[in-house]
Amino acid sequence: MTDDLVNRLLNGEPRAVARAISKVEDASADAPELMKAVFPRTGNALVIGITGSPGAGKSSLVDKLALLYRERGDKIGIVAVDPSSPFSGGAILGDRIRMQTLGLDENVFIRSMATRGNLGGLARTTVDAVSILDAAGYDKVIVETVGVGQDEVEIVKAADVSVVVLVPGMGDDIQAIKAGIMEIGDVFAINKADREGVIRTEKELEALLSLAHRQDLWEPPIVRTVATESKGIEDLAEAIKAYSEFVKDAGPGSSRRVAIAKWRLLELAREQLLARLLNRNGTEKELDRLAEEIAEKKRDPYSAVEELIREL
Amino acid sequence: MTDDLVNRLLNGEPRAVARAISKVEDASADAPELMKAVFPRTGNALVIGITGSPGAGKSSLVDKLALLYRERGDKIGIVAVDPSSPFSGGAILGDRIRMQTLGLDENVFIRSMATRGNLGGLARTTVDAVSILDAAGYDKVIVETVGVGQDEVEIVKAADVSVVVLVPGMGDDIQAIKAGIMEIGDVFAINKADREGVIRTEKELEALLSLAHRQDLWEPPIVRTVATESKGIEDLAEAIKAYSEFVKDAGPGSSRRVAIAKWRLLELAREQLLARLLNRNGTEKELDRLAEEIAEKKRDPYSAVEELIREL
Repeated sequence: MTDDLVNRLLNGEPRAVARAISKVEDASADAPELMKAVFPRTGNALVIGITGSPGAGKSSLVDKLALLYRERGDKIGIVAVDPSSPFSGGAILGDRIRMQTLGLDENVFIRSMATRGNLGGLARTTVDAVSILDAAGYDKVIVETVGVGQDEVEIVKAADVSVVVLVPGMGDDIQAIKAGIMEIGDVFAINKADREGVIRTEKELEALLSLAHRQDLWEPPIVRTVATESKGIEDLAEAIKAYSEFVKDAGPGSSRRVAIAKWRLLELAREQLLARLLNRNGTEKELDRLAEEIAEKKRDPYSAVEELIREL
Repeated sequence: MTDDLVNRLLNGEPRAVARAISKVEDASADAPELMKAVFPRTGNALVIGITGSPGAGKSSLVDKLALLYRERGDKIGIVAVDPSSPFSGGAILGDRIRMQTLGLDENVFIRSMATRGNLGGLARTTVDAVSILDAAGYDKVIVETVGVGQDEVEIVKAADVSVVVLVPGMGDDIQAIKAGIMEIGDVFAINKADREGVIRTEKELEALLSLAHRQDLWEPPIVRTVATESKGIEDLAEAIKAYSEFVKDAGPGSSRRVAIAKWRLLELAREQLLARLLNRNGTEKELDRLAEEIAEKKRDPYSAVEELIREL
């Protein structure tokens, strides 16, 4: 069963790709076996991580970039990370508007990833989905994250090239810059660049970048874009290419790649250790009982967790 | 040593509070003992979580709200969650501007929380810091998260009252609303409400809220604020109070409190299981070796993690 799925996946069949990603998301029993088969076939795609604040126009930018790559003959995978509603477990709004323009192209694969329950692991499942698309022969895999949270930053870090999208006027509030996204940008796009304040934002960004200390001595280019009018998209593609060529020289054993591998390993370990605990007989019940006792302040979380993991 | 620290903490000494939070952040060996002593003394503070997009003016709003509570005689704790730079491990910009206005008031305790290395656990350490401030006698503890990521959402969920801050014009891009923050808001503040588009944003928000299904049947109020001019702050405080009174009737065993306790327990379990692995002799070395092999595609992360956790 998995063998067949793996073969179809490696042949680039979209349905097999979709199914494989679902297995990874659901943490299904044969997911590890699947990923073991997939992993050696990865490394050909250029993985582009795109992040920035809500409202920066990331989706439009991703769509236009994907269209440009399509025109050049590439197969494109798009993974959109949507932290889903913590209460209902599902996204409020359904499929993306982009599906209307790109979704019918069989050489474009679009997938939204959302949080699924306690095991979390959104970062891990996203990175696995990227590996699957890579192994399936997609030339460019674009990972778009909504928001600038901790997990989102980690997801973008795991890309070959990280693009941070800003908009003019965001400099009003330095929070946008404080959120830890500055240092992860290999390329910066100032989108909605037809708006007032673009020069000021560019100057502020340049000043901030001059303060940053990149170990690799790369100077991140700043590109102006107006995604809705398809302006600046080629420049963006050019900047992405420039960085990917810059790092290619570093080789597979580069410190960035090792750091990504280590992070990935720790994410997996964290998840599998918790899964071991949760799969143990009786844990669910014990967990509910302890949670109630904590809520009623009959005991503290620290002594409760000691009890929970003692026998493991 | 810890006994003394606990006593000073419970007496509300700011330096003891700061030290205790550092112990929790550093996952120091006596942190569990400390938290066991702290936990039974919690439950008196009103914990207010404030989230929203970068640029929404959350910091100003938090500052003004804190000032209002101070005028009313409350002791205030502010915990600002700053996902720090993933590369350097530190925030780029230093202390906050707010320190100039609030930082000199001895009844205001301000602390920034940042990611620290592999153990992560930003959500857990933040919630522990809130418990410490609660036990130390702070009447209101305000937790402010930058960004709308997965962890940030969980942190705000763990508050007694969750406030989501929006700004007019963000409706341009539905991403702001998709990021899973809609359903966690018990109160919504439209900040910068002197800007154009406030009515449209309010209408859109009302429409979205009418689609949401809250289990507790609470109808989240929408408050207009202009934090920089101290406008609407009393209305915001009123709305926060209204919700806190609404939930008080639910009692300590309410499903929300049990859900928070369960989440906290799982976070702790995840972290302590990983710590067990990392504290094992030789793990660091093995981890480095495996990460290098993964980076060089000599092996896949899944078989590597199996090897890593096999003997645990």
